[in-house]
Amino acid sequence: MMMTVVPAGLNETKDRLIIIDQTLLPNEEKWLELDKAEDIWEAIKKLRVRGAPAIGIAAAFGLYVCSLKSQATSVREFRKEFEEIRDYLATSRPTAVNLFWALDRMTERFEKEENKTLDEIKEALLDESEKILREDQAMCKAIGEYGLSLLEPKMGLLTHCNAGGLATSGYGTALAPMYLGHQKGYDFKVFADETRPLLQGSRLTAYELSKAGIDITVICDNMASQVMKEGKIDAVLVGCDRVAANGDTANKIGTSGVAILAKEYGIPMYILGPTSTIDLNTPRGTDIVIELRDEDEIGNSFGRRTAPKGVKAYNPAFDVTDAEYITAIITDKGIVRPPYTENLKKLFDKNIH
Amino acid sequence: MMMTVVPAGLNETKDRLIIIDQTLLPNEEKWLELDKAEDIWEAIKKLRVRGAPAIGIAAAFGLYVCSLKSQATSVREFRKEFEEIRDYLATSRPTAVNLFWALDRMTERFEKEENKTLDEIKEALLDESEKILREDQAMCKAIGEYGLSLLEPKMGLLTHCNAGGLATSGYGTALAPMYLGHQKGYDFKVFADETRPLLQGSRLTAYELSKAGIDITVICDNMASQVMKEGKIDAVLVGCDRVAANGDTANKIGTSGVAILAKEYGIPMYILGPTSTIDLNTPRGTDIVIELRDEDEIGNSFGRRTAPKGVKAYNPAFDVTDAEYITAIITDKGIVRPPYTENLKKLFDKNIH
Repeated sequence: MMMTVVPAGLNETKDRLIIIDQTLLPNEEKWLELDKAEDIWEAIKKLRVRGAPAIGIAAAFGLYVCSLKSQATSVREFRKEFEEIRDYLATSRPTAVNLFWALDRMTERFEKEENKTLDEIKEALLDESEKILREDQAMCKAIGEYGLSLLEPKMGLLTHCNAGGLATSGYGTALAPMYLGHQKGYDFKVFADETRPLLQGSRLTAYELSKAGIDITVICDNMASQVMKEGKIDAVLVGCDRVAANGDTANKIGTSGVAILAKEYGIPMYILGPTSTIDLNTPRGTDIVIELRDEDEIGNSFGRRTAPKGVKAYNPAFDVTDAEYITAIITDKGIVRPPYTENLKKLFDKNIH
Repeated sequence: MMMTVVPAGLNETKDRLIIIDQTLLPNEEKWLELDKAEDIWEAIKKLRVRGAPAIGIAAAFGLYVCSLKSQATSVREFRKEFEEIRDYLATSRPTAVNLFWALDRMTERFEKEENKTLDEIKEALLDESEKILREDQAMCKAIGEYGLSLLEPKMGLLTHCNAGGLATSGYGTALAPMYLGHQKGYDFKVFADETRPLLQGSRLTAYELSKAGIDITVICDNMASQVMKEGKIDAVLVGCDRVAANGDTANKIGTSGVAILAKEYGIPMYILGPTSTIDLNTPRGTDIVIELRDEDEIGNSFGRRTAPKGVKAYNPAFDVTDAEYITAIITDKGIVRPPYTENLKKLFDKNIH
């Protein structure tokens, strides 16, 4: 797929990580070829690569390409260098759970292969990176297929923020049914909330969907009610950052408002994400702490003052959509409907047996 | 009041219209001194002065200051020049009802004084401009007092767009209770939706309320649900462009979404405006045509691409809030509550008797 960040991620010789610089979109399409730990660290830190799965994959590939450069002649020496790079990359975004998960997987694989030759270990690290990538692609595809089963050709779809190919390795999560439907000629009319303050909807979602040839229209966040009222929206599809055990869902700021509007207009509201974002240890949404971000993202946007200097801004990065507004949660393991407390648990029980 | 555009509108010698250039706010506070018809036309056209009442007052004063320059020696000749300026100013914003209303009032006054001397007629034109201004100030004050009667000290208030002093001559409409409450030490905590795409909330509302020393916090439009959920909002106050006979209300895009959220969270939703915005000849909201504006306001904001070039945007300027979501409509003649079809009519009957 054209939009995947990392599948194009390694070039022929597989010694560099290739990513598109998302901070420059949509003004500039700049591909970065990275093979230094400092550059990979900076790319993650500065959100040049973003989205939980994409960060994990970039970190895994990054750890591999950096290790390749080692001059070590013993496994012990190589392992020391590997761990230094790993610990350094782990500091790039300390709140990104997927970053640690991917680095841990690479470490476990290293340990498993430790009695092999240096070349064999390097080969194994590449193999593990590619496994993480392929698993993510399969996860996106499964979510896309489950999601598509709920949609019909010609539907109008609304999404918020970017839960697409740019945030993952493959089709994305919320956008996966759109890509799969497009391949089948479903002819969706997609609307993307621009998603202030950082405009992931207008910058990234609009970019990747238009590149794929999908009919995409950008609206400002405050226009969702009007497009719903005009009958333009048949379903809302959004991603998620964390789903609590009762179905309450944390996602990009604005999601809860869209969900309330959807319910009011009788439009189904679907949350799409991998089972790994369902956290049964978080009982309900009120247990999720909302990150507050820099006020200047609101008051000093796009390189100029958008609010008077000195005026306060309140900038929560996420909100929690109460389970009562969610029609279904679509995962790679299946579609979960209310009552969520019961049915989300079943999803995991099913996995165990 | 510091924030009025036009009261400061004529200086000592009363031969120039003085307005703040709203297009430059909040980056620059530039006062324009206008005495040429072309400049006044351009200021209205380019939204340097905006808001229905402010446009009307600027047009009335503008017509007066331009007439002052006439070299005519006969009333007939002076009237011809007056009408040329009037007809020219009328083309500046052809959809602004208040513009025509104010120019018509000036014409009627001219006709009433036509058998007087040139100096007396000019004096009358100044008097009529000042009357329009004073009536607007009184209207704002009345709305503010009715509105304030529904509020309590320390309340958190949310507003959308700018229905304040910058859009009128005085306290504004939706912001009037905030100004009056502030004078009484009510210590409101006001939140302003930034109001994409043109940011009237963050640029103008935040500007004028902070200038007045009112506690103001800007949020992105998609954060309204979250601040309501956090219990920060006790009432929503917004202006209106047109109120239909059944209470359905057209106002800046995004208002209907805020109203639906307010109802969901059990927060009162107040519409504030002069009785002149109530149009009993419009039976219901579906009879109001929604103006679509330039797509580039969304995709090309703040001097740079905010969506990829060539991607569609949908940019309705207004939306209609259904009467069912409106707790009360606050006018200069009193507070109207449901059922609106019955009670809005009474408001006018009361005026007639």
